[in-house]
Amino acid sequence: MDKRFVVGVDIGGTKISCALSDLNGSIIKQYVLDTEAQSGKEAVVRNIFKCIDQIMPDSEITKDQISAIGIGSPGPLDAERGIIIKSANLPFENFPIVELITEKYKLPAYLENDANVAAIGENMFGAGKGTKNMVFITVSTGVGGGAIIDGKFFKGSTSNSLEIGHMTILPDGPKCNCGNIGCLEALSSGTAIGKQGRVAVESGMDTSLKNYTKVTAAEVFQEAEKGDTVSQVIIDRSLYYLGIGVANTMTLFDPEMIVIGGGVSKAGSVVFEKLQETVNKRCMSNYLKSCRIVPAGLGGDAGVVGAVALAILNS
Amino acid sequence: MDKRFVVGVDIGGTKISCALSDLNGSIIKQYVLDTEAQSGKEAVVRNIFKCIDQIMPDSEITKDQISAIGIGSPGPLDAERGIIIKSANLPFENFPIVELITEKYKLPAYLENDANVAAIGENMFGAGKGTKNMVFITVSTGVGGGAIIDGKFFKGSTSNSLEIGHMTILPDGPKCNCGNIGCLEALSSGTAIGKQGRVAVESGMDTSLKNYTKVTAAEVFQEAEKGDTVSQVIIDRSLYYLGIGVANTMTLFDPEMIVIGGGVSKAGSVVFEKLQETVNKRCMSNYLKSCRIVPAGLGGDAGVVGAVALAILNS
Repeated sequence: MDKRFVVGVDIGGTKISCALSDLNGSIIKQYVLDTEAQSGKEAVVRNIFKCIDQIMPDSEITKDQISAIGIGSPGPLDAERGIIIKSANLPFENFPIVELITEKYKLPAYLENDANVAAIGENMFGAGKGTKNMVFITVSTGVGGGAIIDGKFFKGSTSNSLEIGHMTILPDGPKCNCGNIGCLEALSSGTAIGKQGRVAVESGMDTSLKNYTKVTAAEVFQEAEKGDTVSQVIIDRSLYYLGIGVANTMTLFDPEMIVIGGGVSKAGSVVFEKLQETVNKRCMSNYLKSCRIVPAGLGGDAGVVGAVALAILNS
Repeated sequence: MDKRFVVGVDIGGTKISCALSDLNGSIIKQYVLDTEAQSGKEAVVRNIFKCIDQIMPDSEITKDQISAIGIGSPGPLDAERGIIIKSANLPFENFPIVELITEKYKLPAYLENDANVAAIGENMFGAGKGTKNMVFITVSTGVGGGAIIDGKFFKGSTSNSLEIGHMTILPDGPKCNCGNIGCLEALSSGTAIGKQGRVAVESGMDTSLKNYTKVTAAEVFQEAEKGDTVSQVIIDRSLYYLGIGVANTMTLFDPEMIVIGGGVSKAGSVVFEKLQETVNKRCMSNYLKSCRIVPAGLGGDAGVVGAVALAILNS
């Protein structure tokens, strides 16, 4: 039999990234394109097709050798029906992305939200390789997650499992975009950190953040590292609540490993030390022995490698 | 082939309950005995054996027709190794219950904690029959849980999944027996409700609870129903935090159904209305459409029926 291949498509608000890979996850070709989300639906679809076309097989590998296309996208999605329900950063609403790609390329296509796709990728090729029970938590603009249970990707009954960002952590906490208050996402996401930094500046606190015209999570992390007390308090607090979220997840899923990805995880070992400190206090000791908390292994390519992994999973 | 049967053993702090059942969960014989926990380890073991002996097959069914023995016990356990590590209400420590029963009866035996056993029972024969993704939460002395995922009992990597009672719900909340603060169990268990009732009396609050010489959760529920404001506030608050715990579990597991068992669930529909009210505020709307919260279906026999179900699962 001919060697088999898959295609991974990562649709982000800024970039579309596509890769052709073998079933071991070795990338043969990769192509990245601007999403041009502000140019509307048609433009984005054109760019998705253009990006896939670029990595489609040429003379050496034939199209017949491709088993599946995996697609990662921000949600909420109806993964079963292959539909992007809505996305804050993409001009899509109830958009049948799977149908569109299946029809054009005559290949089976599979859709999962970006956190789930990254969870599959981390389990197959990243930090969680070899684990049978693993939870992935991503902390960037939002907070999301995905899990591998008994060696299988865990969907939940409606493909909406592990919406970790919308777990209530502080019952009387700040308002979340979802309508609830005190969600993990409203306390510990990059968006929440940036917002707290801006509030600190606006309320006239003594902080070096006031030297920036625009304060985001990046500036708060940067100034915290330089010794700005206000920034340090903001970071400490958000990692404290994230630690509670991680501890709760550990207590419910009893995984071997919790993999933390997204922008916040890139801030280095201090983040993981602070997280572990809270988890040590919040979790029963048996979990602390059996479960490790580690940074994601796939870095910037997590999205497209995850989409490849999703395709392999369905091959 | 002969018809097959199983044995279920529910070891409680007060009663030991054993049943002989066919593989459809039809109980052929059942026997209940006092645990006599205060009489020490040997007495309890003697009673366990005595109870099993009573339901062991007579002339009509032969021992060869029995496939397995399922055992439910309070934890913490090492379920894989068949050991009761410790129990607040049983005189056991690192007690190899599975080995003991296997040796005596020459039958394979399986151990799970009481919440997991009840989860399996509710899924196989109770309120969750027919569901493939179900979470069971029991609220009585403590708060525990168990889950069925994709039609299979979910153990976790060390058989310690779904320790729902030790999820942090209120970061600055009351101290829990586990060492953490603000655990669901410290806020919403029967023990927590009783304790709040006693504190109310001791601090001289105007409550009808002061008419009792001993205040437990039962009295608080009773007086709340009769209109005692202090008792009502205690019940409302504990159901509010339980609602957050249920909402968080829903957000992480995306189940079709959450089954609530244990003493608190028997307090009737008011409990479920209050729970649902909090869940409606705390969960994203998609979950509210796809997941129902229902009372347990097995009632007082949940333990032994669950132990039977555990045995069937392993037959």
